[in-house]
Amino acid sequence: MLTCLRRELLVSEDSSTGAVTGPQTSSVSLVLAKASGRDQIRIGTAHPARQPPTSSWWHCGRGSIAQKAQRVTYCVGAILEKGMIFASDSRTNAGVDNFAKFCKMTVFERRGNRVVVLLSSGNLAGTQAVISVLTQRCTDGDAATNLLGARTMFDVVTLVSDATRDIEKRDAGYLEENNIRFNASFIVGGQIVGEPIRLFRTYAEGNFIEAGSETPFLQTGETKYGKPILDRVLTQRTPLADATKCVLVSFDSTMRSNLSVGMPIDLICYERDSFEVQWRRRFDEGDTYFTALSDEWGEGVRQVFRHLPELRW
Amino acid sequence: MLTCLRRELLVSEDSSTGAVTGPQTSSVSLVLAKASGRDQIRIGTAHPARQPPTSSWWHCGRGSIAQKAQRVTYCVGAILEKGMIFASDSRTNAGVDNFAKFCKMTVFERRGNRVVVLLSSGNLAGTQAVISVLTQRCTDGDAATNLLGARTMFDVVTLVSDATRDIEKRDAGYLEENNIRFNASFIVGGQIVGEPIRLFRTYAEGNFIEAGSETPFLQTGETKYGKPILDRVLTQRTPLADATKCVLVSFDSTMRSNLSVGMPIDLICYERDSFEVQWRRRFDEGDTYFTALSDEWGEGVRQVFRHLPELRW
Repeated sequence: MLTCLRRELLVSEDSSTGAVTGPQTSSVSLVLAKASGRDQIRIGTAHPARQPPTSSWWHCGRGSIAQKAQRVTYCVGAILEKGMIFASDSRTNAGVDNFAKFCKMTVFERRGNRVVVLLSSGNLAGTQAVISVLTQRCTDGDAATNLLGARTMFDVVTLVSDATRDIEKRDAGYLEENNIRFNASFIVGGQIVGEPIRLFRTYAEGNFIEAGSETPFLQTGETKYGKPILDRVLTQRTPLADATKCVLVSFDSTMRSNLSVGMPIDLICYERDSFEVQWRRRFDEGDTYFTALSDEWGEGVRQVFRHLPELRW
Repeated sequence: MLTCLRRELLVSEDSSTGAVTGPQTSSVSLVLAKASGRDQIRIGTAHPARQPPTSSWWHCGRGSIAQKAQRVTYCVGAILEKGMIFASDSRTNAGVDNFAKFCKMTVFERRGNRVVVLLSSGNLAGTQAVISVLTQRCTDGDAATNLLGARTMFDVVTLVSDATRDIEKRDAGYLEENNIRFNASFIVGGQIVGEPIRLFRTYAEGNFIEAGSETPFLQTGETKYGKPILDRVLTQRTPLADATKCVLVSFDSTMRSNLSVGMPIDLICYERDSFEVQWRRRFDEGDTYFTALSDEWGEGVRQVFRHLPELRW
């Protein structure tokens, strides 16, 4: 366990692995649609990947360049009585002078049967390769060994783990020649007919943990700035609407403190037993709702402070 | 600058440097009192160091042991129009199976002339040695070259820097033989007659930065969990009472997420141009005010969430 958690600290969209300089095609845009509406199959990023490099990565007083370069990405998965929330940022970087946007959310959906959501952290070449392998396997071979056919969510996350190890086997040696460590980890959650909703988090080594009743959320990447608000607000009984707001505020806090976590934010709210993604949203810079949420949260917090009891020295 | 910030990541109350296994006397308890009340001189920790090892350092679901062992200590200094706030935790550790409490706050005070507050981060043997050197120099030698006589706060922080480098020169080689890096850094703030209030943060290398008008607070140690709330609330115009509550909530957030930051919390609120420490408080575990503050903050935050606008998908 110590090994995994040590690795967690290294989560980053790493530079020299072709992340931003490689071809800009989206590797996960395959969509399979069967005739029956009930059995419609979708695989894809929540939104097509976009690629205008962002500017203004440096901001006075927000911490160190070295620090930021080590911790881009922020992903959260939450598991509640009524359903699940998934959210990911879209910032990647190859060094401090090359930032770009890539969607880190991938959905494998068979309406009426399953919804599986993956949120990617790690070097982009690695996570994209894992997603591509998982996607290709959905069209080849035995259904029981792909994400659209696997019997349980445990089997699903095991397949993600296997694919991660396959890519590590292929790439790690070459990366190590340049002192780069292979690093791909995922938040994996969703529901398959016959099972409750389940939420996992894989590590670069391929092992994984599952969220339990006392830990209703899992994070990857730059986790610290956004964790206190999740700790204070999220319980299993939190309504989906409140949990959605809480996750977005957690992103707002993180983005204020670490500029290498950046918009757009991809968000999915999955209602338990619906077996389809009904609510999905992308928040781009300047999004009216997100801005209002951030402003009202800030003002609300300052009001709470004014009403807290004063210290008697 | 990169070097400093890289070093910041390593801040810890380190193990094998005699931190907890060495003699348990407080090295900074010297108090000099001159006859005149106006010129009373005090040097000392905010409270005498205490030493019952704490239990229950492990808690399920709060992160990794490895991670915690790297980041104990949380200190904050804030500089506002009306004065300054200083706060430090008291947790040290020598490995994961040996936690203890040491006061990390030291005050050099000449009533009517100056108040200088130091908050220590780094390995305990190093920070204690620096404080002892600074304390001894107050009784020997040229007044202009000690903290009670120095002309400006810039001169004060330069003396802290010099003492840090002196101790590094003495110890670093011996530590490196065991792969331990010398590490002592300080938040240094206060006011000397003729100057405004000023706030600095030194690095292990001895260089330092000063807080400016756009950065009204400086942190050391486990800074991330407690930063969002400071970012949202603290501006130069924040009243001292609100800033005090904000700093305490920042500590509460940090302690919830990182168990190696621990009570007691030492707190000083310095009113500008008072040239004496009027408000000082120690919060131990179970402190009634701190518990009420934490509870009311949590409830207030949940209420703010309930009133935030709901997302329209």
